Amino acid sequence: MLHLAAPTRADWLPQALAALPAILVDHAHCEKKAASTAMNLIFRYVDQPDLVAALSPLAREELEHFEQVLALLPARGLALQRLEPAPYAARLHAAVRKDEPQRLLDTLLCCALIEARSCERMKLLAEGLAEAEEAELAAFYRSLLASEARHFSTYTDLAAARFGRAETMARLEALAAHEAAVLATPGPEPRLHA
Amino acid sequence: MLHLAAPTRADWLPQALAALPAILVDHAHCEKKAASTAMNLIFRYVDQPDLVAALSPLAREELEHFEQVLALLPARGLALQRLEPAPYAARLHAAVRKDEPQRLLDTLLCCALIEARSCERMKLLAEGLAEAEEAELAAFYRSLLASEARHFSTYTDLAAARFGRAETMARLEALAAHEAAVLATPGPEPRLHA
Repeated sequence: MLHLAAPTRADWLPQALAALPAILVDHAHCEKKAASTAMNLIFRYVDQPDLVAALSPLAREELEHFEQVLALLPARGLALQRLEPAPYAARLHAAVRKDEPQRLLDTLLCCALIEARSCERMKLLAEGLAEAEEAELAAFYRSLLASEARHFSTYTDLAAARFGRAETMARLEALAAHEAAVLATPGPEPRLHA
Repeated sequence: MLHLAAPTRADWLPQALAALPAILVDHAHCEKKAASTAMNLIFRYVDQPDLVAALSPLAREELEHFEQVLALLPARGLALQRLEPAPYAARLHAAVRKDEPQRLLDTLLCCALIEARSCERMKLLAEGLAEAEEAELAAFYRSLLASEARHFSTYTDLAAARFGRAETMARLEALAAHEAAVLATPGPEPRLHA
């Protein structure tokens, strides 16, 4: 349903569960980055009312998730600190074509794929955390799944409204293959998108 | 209470009321910019938990106001379009010192002064719009005043927590004088901060 070209590698979940502090802090950064990306799209395409109307509430929701992750940190002895991000987003966005309108199509679909991958991995985390009897964190990750899936649709719907469903799905398939290739080899550090 | 060094010139309100479409569109851009400025501060000072905790909800609230202004546009035959911003914010921020920690102090206080000036001008607009029997817009601007004043306190409280109340108030007074000087001559176009 989320159009990912490949499921997450089997070794990601045990590594993530073994490095929960880094995963949580990275997750906070990811929500902040998601809000900032939506804001940047609003600035760049400010004269496209449907895009602005869809992405402003999305940015607010990402900030709300950011605050929810932050609220989980102190009880675990953690604080938001700078963290080397996973190379994932930069490598994914490297496939964005430089000229409009392709740039907009590709950017929307890369954003959609990040939401899809987040949804898939948060579901894995929720299941793994439940097994590890981390009930609070498991419930938190379960609570985010519907939003991540909805954000995937927000981005793909914006793309389809501009480029048609056929071109959108064809390009989504190509970018999904690229996204899966980016994640095929483990990243250097435990991250949500490692 | 809001520490402005000078009230708005008498000619601003009639000019703003005579150019309401531009004022509304400019106002939408100002809310978007306020959200983006708060986000940028979160990125720059991400390891300062009290700043991040205060500015993430503030950014969300600015986006909510942005959406509220956008919702007022279509019934008035308006749409969000690119608009030359008032030179105000750039001229105000030109007084920010370049080195930390002064850069942070000055940035927080410039943000505070923008909130204070917005509050003062939205009050003028609310009164002028009520007299002009623009009840919906008058009520809208009245509804924003408490938030603008609260945001002023958010920024000055963050400054005082870092630099002490005395240094904060002394620098606020100096920057308020600069802010008033920036607004002493009319801007080239009708704007919220012209």
